[in-house]
Parts: sequence; structure tokens; C-alpha cells
Amino acid sequence: MKIVRTAGELRAELAEERAADRTVGFVPTMGALHEGHLSLVRLARSSTAAVVVSIFVNPLQFGPSEDFEAYPRDEAHDLELLEREGVDIVFIPRARDVWAQPPTTLVSVGELSRIVEGAIRPGHFDGVATVVATLFNLVRPDVAYFGQKDAQQVAVIKKMVTDLAWPIEIRVGPTVRDPDGLALSSRNVYLNAAERTRATSLWRALQEGERSLASGDALETTEKVMWEALVAGGVEPDYASVVDPDTFGPVDTQAGSLLVIAAHVGSTRLIDNLLVNREA
Amino acid sequence: MKIVRTAGELRAELAEERAADRTVGFVPTMGALHEGHLSLVRLARSSTAAVVVSIFVNPLQFGPSEDFEAYPRDEAHDLELLEREGVDIVFIPRARDVWAQPPTTLVSVGELSRIVEGAIRPGHFDGVATVVATLFNLVRPDVAYFGQKDAQQVAVIKKMVTDLAWPIEIRVGPTVRDPDGLALSSRNVYLNAAERTRATSLWRALQEGERSLASGDALETTEKVMWEALVAGGVEPDYASVVDPDTFGPVDTQAGSLLVIAAHVGSTRLIDNLLVNREA
Repeated sequence: MKIVRTAGELRAELAEERAADRTVGFVPTMGALHEGHLSLVRLARSSTAAVVVSIFVNPLQFGPSEDFEAYPRDEAHDLELLEREGVDIVFIPRARDVWAQPPTTLVSVGELSRIVEGAIRPGHFDGVATVVATLFNLVRPDVAYFGQKDAQQVAVIKKMVTDLAWPIEIRVGPTVRDPDGLALSSRNVYLNAAERTRATSLWRALQEGERSLASGDALETTEKVMWEALVAGGVEPDYASVVDPDTFGPVDTQAGSLLVIAAHVGSTRLIDNLLVNREA
Repeated sequence: MKIVRTAGELRAELAEERAADRTVGFVPTMGALHEGHLSLVRLARSSTAAVVVSIFVNPLQFGPSEDFEAYPRDEAHDLELLEREGVDIVFIPRARDVWAQPPTTLVSVGELSRIVEGAIRPGHFDGVATVVATLFNLVRPDVAYFGQKDAQQVAVIKKMVTDLAWPIEIRVGPTVRDPDGLALSSRNVYLNAAERTRATSLWRALQEGERSLASGDALETTEKVMWEALVAGGVEPDYASVVDPDTFGPVDTQAGSLLVIAAHVGSTRLIDNLLVNREA
């Protein structure tokens, strides 16, 4: 496994892969790796010849009052996990290895980046799209892998790739959950024992929402059911909505419905989602 | 010379060039080709193995009251000119060949896109950056060529390429002028005979500005000299400024000074610029 820290080193390693005509699969991460990330690495490992993983805590996607400084970092452990998965190249740049000068360019997919999660975290998805665009240019993968856990991020990246004609296939891996249903997240380490117990109410709220939809409830009713399940579970909801999985706007039944929730568990903010009724 | 109209045809043609390890030079245009464009094609022809020219009147870079519909189009003549220059591939998409659905994604380089020319044409440079990003993804050139005539566009593209780490070298060709100094522009065809005569005042204003700077005048004096030369020449200035050639903000003497002007000649709006005192 090659560990590279600059764009130049990365290009040199990738040139070898390309000379050998190996397809490149790319998993961008912010480190603090868990089974969710590793499931994407395995997906890449099984379908592309060369697997590149980036570890970069992207400053552009954190708001001024968010947890950029506190975000968990454990490079040694991350590298151990990736080595075990047979990753070919790990790209771990510092911000100054990505940008010699602070970037002013932003990539924005428009309305989709400003609603639901984007309404609570202004600028977040522009920061995500911008860094993913930059990483796409550095890595030039054939396929890139993202987790369904960050459903709106997936929609943003797909929109950006379509609109800007990026020749990259986007594949989405399912959300990986603890046995009690809590979606894996690097931020779960912030939870104390009592909070960890309350955090399971996110998954319960989604399941109750799914049952509500299946029983034929109106969308507003389903949203109320989820909200109340969160409150009953002792967490503070930011939103509990039923949206179109591509636009995050009003549901288009053809595309299925996406249940999306965000809630504060103590001082930790968690998100989760569940796709239902999606046709093939 | 291959003429392709869809992204799929383009990719197929480019795959052949890449299989043969030929470097790809790219000249994006909006058609209505003149010697300015052709000088860029020759630059590409002399330094890259495969030359790709796009002809696409990009709707994103025109404001609602601008000349998108009227913009000159002459495909047959353009193709004749490009054939004569030994171009390998001409990409002439319709908007729906580039975007199956109207794009909502925008690439913006920030402040640079909102000042000087960007202040008069809100959204113009975001439209330029977005379509160039899209064309870069479709063509994936090694080198892309732009004309100094559109100096702020050059600065925008360079900033976008640096910030988003595009692995593309940007080369800039000098402004091509008629014998009386008028910078070639596809919009010059809008000028009637009397307007064509008055249009030479743009070049005279830049020369007077250069003399003013050389004589040690303050920047404000130089700007006044250019403005008055435009008015005296019977055209209506939008701006006449001395700016930093990279940021279009206040002059950094190390980077040289760029004299930039825009003026209405009858109902036609023209721009021009002159780089002075630039160090190597």
C-alpha cells in the first residue's frame, strides 16, 4: 500500500496504474474510518483494479461553529484498516498540499444544496462539492464510491457529476448499522453511554416512518410520526421529512420516497435516512 | 477532420487519440471564428499532437438582455476554416447534447467573477467557468488555449484550474488586431461603417493609457486619460481601469498592470485590454 501526501506523488503513483490500464476506484473519506467506510473500500476492491482512498478532513465543509478542530483523527489506525483491505494508494494531504493558496472557487449544485440538511448547514454542500471536484481532478477515478448514510451528499455529487459531465461513475453503498440500528458515523465516538442509548431513536423513528408510509398515511402524518418518535426517544430533532431522493424536494412517487432525519443527541448532531418504495 | 456532435461520439474519437498516446490540445470557441481563434488553433497545432476545437454558443454566459439569439453563427464557414488549419476533431454540440436536463450546478471563482466586467455582466463569468469545466470534463485536454483579448476570462479560468486542481495547462495567445488596432471579436460584425471607425478609439485609449503609465502618472490619472480618449472617440465607456492581471483588484506592481476597457459603440459592446510592465 502506497501512502502519498502531495498531488505530485499521487500523480506519479496513478500514472503507473494508468500505464497498466487498470481501472481506478476511489473512496474519498475524512478518516476516523469505520465499517461504513470499509464496506465502500470492499465494494471498490471487488470491482476496480486499483483502489485509491483519500483521508482529508475538508475545512470547506465545516461551518464556523462546527467541529472541524474536534473531528476525530487517527491516521495510524486508519492506515492499519486500509492495509488490511488491500488498498493500493492512500492519499493523505494537508490542506496546503491540496491548495497552495486558499481557494476561492466554489462548486454549487444550486437549490438541492440549500434545502433540508443544507438549510441547517449553510455552505456545507458547496464545500463538499468543491472538495470532491478537486479530489476528482487529482485522482481522476473511473468509479467513485459514496455511502447512502449521507443521502443528500450522494444526491449533490450525482447532480454535480451529471451537470458538469464528469466521466466518473458514482456507486452508492448501503448504510452500515450497529446491531441496534444506529447508523455508523465517525461522530458516534462523541456519544457518552446514556447518549448512545438515546441515539437508537433515530433508527426507530425511521422504522416507524416506514410503517406509517406503508399503512397509507399522508406524508405530513409520517413526518409527524418520525418527529414524535425522536422526541419520545430523548433527542432533539432538526428535521424529520419525506423527500424525493434525487431532488430532496416534494416526493415524486416514481423515484420512491426518502425518509430523512437529523437530531441532536446531547451536543452531538446525527443524521440518518431510509429509502422506501423505490422502483427498480 | 472529424466532426462530432454528441458527448458519446467525442469520447469515442478521443479514446483513439489517447490509445495512441497523443497529447490533446483544446480550443473552446463560440464559433463565428476569426484570426484570433485561428491563432489559438495554430498554437495548439504547433505544440500538441491532437487538436480539438469546440463550437458551442454557451447559453449560461449570456444575461437575459444580452445577444444570445443574435450572436453570429456560421457553421459551414467555421468548419472550412478549421479544416484548413488541420484540426483533428471539431465538437459542435447542441445544448441538449451537453445537458440532458438543464444544469443547476455553477462553478464560481468568487470575487474575481463579480468585479470589473463581472460587475457589468452579473453571472457571466460563472456561466463561463461552468461551461469550461463541463467542456474540460468532456474533452480532458492536456493543454487548453484562451485568448488574451478576454483577459478576465483568462484570469477566471486560471483561478478555477488552480483551485480545483485541474490537470490541464492553460496557455494564452496574444490579442489579434486589425491593422488599425481594433481587437478582433465576433461581435465586430455588428458594427456599421461609422461605428467601425469610432471603434478604433478603444485601441487608441489603451495606447494613451500605456503612455500615461510610462510617464509616471498616478493610476487614477491613467484611468481618466483612457476614459476621456474613449469619450473623445465617440464611444460610451462602461469602465476604463488599471488592475492586477490575475486578481483584477488593486495593482500589484510585481505582476504588472493590466489596462482594461469596455465601451458601447452604438448598440455593440466591445472590450479590450493591454498588459504593461509585466515582469518575466
